[in-house]
Amino acid sequence: MKKVGIREVAQEANVSTATVSRVLNNRGYISQETRDKVQAAMKKLEYYPNDLARALYKKRTYTVGLIFPSNVHPFQAELIQDIEYLLSNQGYKVLLCNSLNNPEKEIAYLTMLKKNQVDGIIVGTHNKHIDGYKNTKLPVIAIDRDLGKNTATVSCDNYAGGQMAVQLLIDRGCKQILDIRGDSSIKLPANERTVAYRDLMKKYSLESHVLEVPFVLAADQKRQIIEDYLGSHPQIDGIFAGDDLLASLAIFYLETHHKKVPDDVKVIGFDGAKETLLYNPRLTTIRQPIEQIARTATEKLINEIKGQKETDQLKLPVTLFTGHTV
Amino acid sequence: MKKVGIREVAQEANVSTATVSRVLNNRGYISQETRDKVQAAMKKLEYYPNDLARALYKKRTYTVGLIFPSNVHPFQAELIQDIEYLLSNQGYKVLLCNSLNNPEKEIAYLTMLKKNQVDGIIVGTHNKHIDGYKNTKLPVIAIDRDLGKNTATVSCDNYAGGQMAVQLLIDRGCKQILDIRGDSSIKLPANERTVAYRDLMKKYSLESHVLEVPFVLAADQKRQIIEDYLGSHPQIDGIFAGDDLLASLAIFYLETHHKKVPDDVKVIGFDGAKETLLYNPRLTTIRQPIEQIARTATEKLINEIKGQKETDQLKLPVTLFTGHTV
Repeated sequence: MKKVGIREVAQEANVSTATVSRVLNNRGYISQETRDKVQAAMKKLEYYPNDLARALYKKRTYTVGLIFPSNVHPFQAELIQDIEYLLSNQGYKVLLCNSLNNPEKEIAYLTMLKKNQVDGIIVGTHNKHIDGYKNTKLPVIAIDRDLGKNTATVSCDNYAGGQMAVQLLIDRGCKQILDIRGDSSIKLPANERTVAYRDLMKKYSLESHVLEVPFVLAADQKRQIIEDYLGSHPQIDGIFAGDDLLASLAIFYLETHHKKVPDDVKVIGFDGAKETLLYNPRLTTIRQPIEQIARTATEKLINEIKGQKETDQLKLPVTLFTGHTV
Repeated sequence: MKKVGIREVAQEANVSTATVSRVLNNRGYISQETRDKVQAAMKKLEYYPNDLARALYKKRTYTVGLIFPSNVHPFQAELIQDIEYLLSNQGYKVLLCNSLNNPEKEIAYLTMLKKNQVDGIIVGTHNKHIDGYKNTKLPVIAIDRDLGKNTATVSCDNYAGGQMAVQLLIDRGCKQILDIRGDSSIKLPANERTVAYRDLMKKYSLESHVLEVPFVLAADQKRQIIEDYLGSHPQIDGIFAGDDLLASLAIFYLETHHKKVPDDVKVIGFDGAKETLLYNPRLTTIRQPIEQIARTATEKLINEIKGQKETDQLKLPVTLFTGHTV
């Protein structure tokens, strides 16, 4: 389909392109008759003023790239939705870039966003060794990811979240507590949860059990790792899971292997996305302040776009959602 | 932040803009020395060839708008993710537009997409009375929505899905089966599920019970409607829910009101998104062929962009996911 430009409008209205341009910009003298003719032609041909041309001229596209692993994972999905909502209220469009935990895909998106002159990027991926965000002049805000001192990062207070979860398990009598965490070789704010776990194990003289389940694995692989571990460690009576999916996988394994949750094993998750709790209101979890993370990241990005450099490393407060699994 | 153009690159390399342009387009004679100087300047200034300028010139943006109610609802989230993946493999970018069931927001997105010269739109919203998709020259493909004979629609075989679900409940001995459905005043392919339900109730001489829960309501309102209904209709022994959220809400109500699922009441959902089944592997549901819907809609959209008009109303086959709730 050929797109309609002012040339086609001018032809249809039988006027010059300069006249069409004057009508569009409300500039110079135009008779009502000519104005009506041009507007009728625009309507007939479905002409819309070209925001692309304007963006090129003004060197501002009002477009933001969101690079996240997936818009399906409930925490990221809610975050993306909140960010898209807030940005659209400020007149920004959102290009959705699901990296699917593929570093090559992430690098290709980054190049595409730069070629398309986006005004800024919000990134929340967990891939290692992506250099394109550092030392770029493009405004970039990170969520749950450490891109160095020069890039602002927004995350929840992971240490406080870890403390809250593990203290609850201890208070409810758990003695053999398992911490299911992500890949420890990636530098992420979430690593603080395990620091909190270890501090509490030490404080209460409890044995540490840490199981690494890399975030980037497929769900079936995650399930297998958890099942293998729980199958060979029947003494575990409490689980602090790195996210609600890991918690759900553990609960399903336990319940289909004749362990009652919470009577025999207590399980607490992390994230607490609205959608997760709608479908799984029984789950006890640490809720991240998703709307607040989205709002903070969006505000900081817009500040950067307007020329104010942001470098804060912010930690926003978490809360406990009391379900029926602890 | 001021964006870098070929003028800045020319200045940095101390050559003319025409020379930069020749390097970029690999045209005309350029000495290796000049070429190296220009490329060094591009690297230093982080210059990326401007895809916006190219789009404007070629009248093709390789951008597609996705207008859906939400990227959080598991079915739509998976659909959006699959479509984004398929389109990105074909060199298209995706503008994410969550209408949040707000008709004004939907209309504003539609105008924004037209102004930004997108090559096409895939729409899966449930708002009434939005005329902007009809009689437009822009390629539009609908998913689960009827936009008239001129627009191709892709959906699952809703009648077969309804039959499969209700027949299963009947086979398992249910006599008082409730159909929880969306707003019957909207013309949607999903309405066929209730047609299948009524046909089976008639065939087996069973009493019909239909509860409307509009899709656009907030989750708390949906929960309230379901709880009120089930509270005042204790005879219900089988539920065919319009989606997995409605099924989950019903199951939670029943289980917290001393009814066992599936012993006392059997419940079957609809959609069966991967993420839902990861978190709720106990749920019995009708699975939509999400990947196939995404692939078909994407192919049809690209065909339309290339000039081949698509008007099929396609119904893709569903399958039963056997959990533990029927």
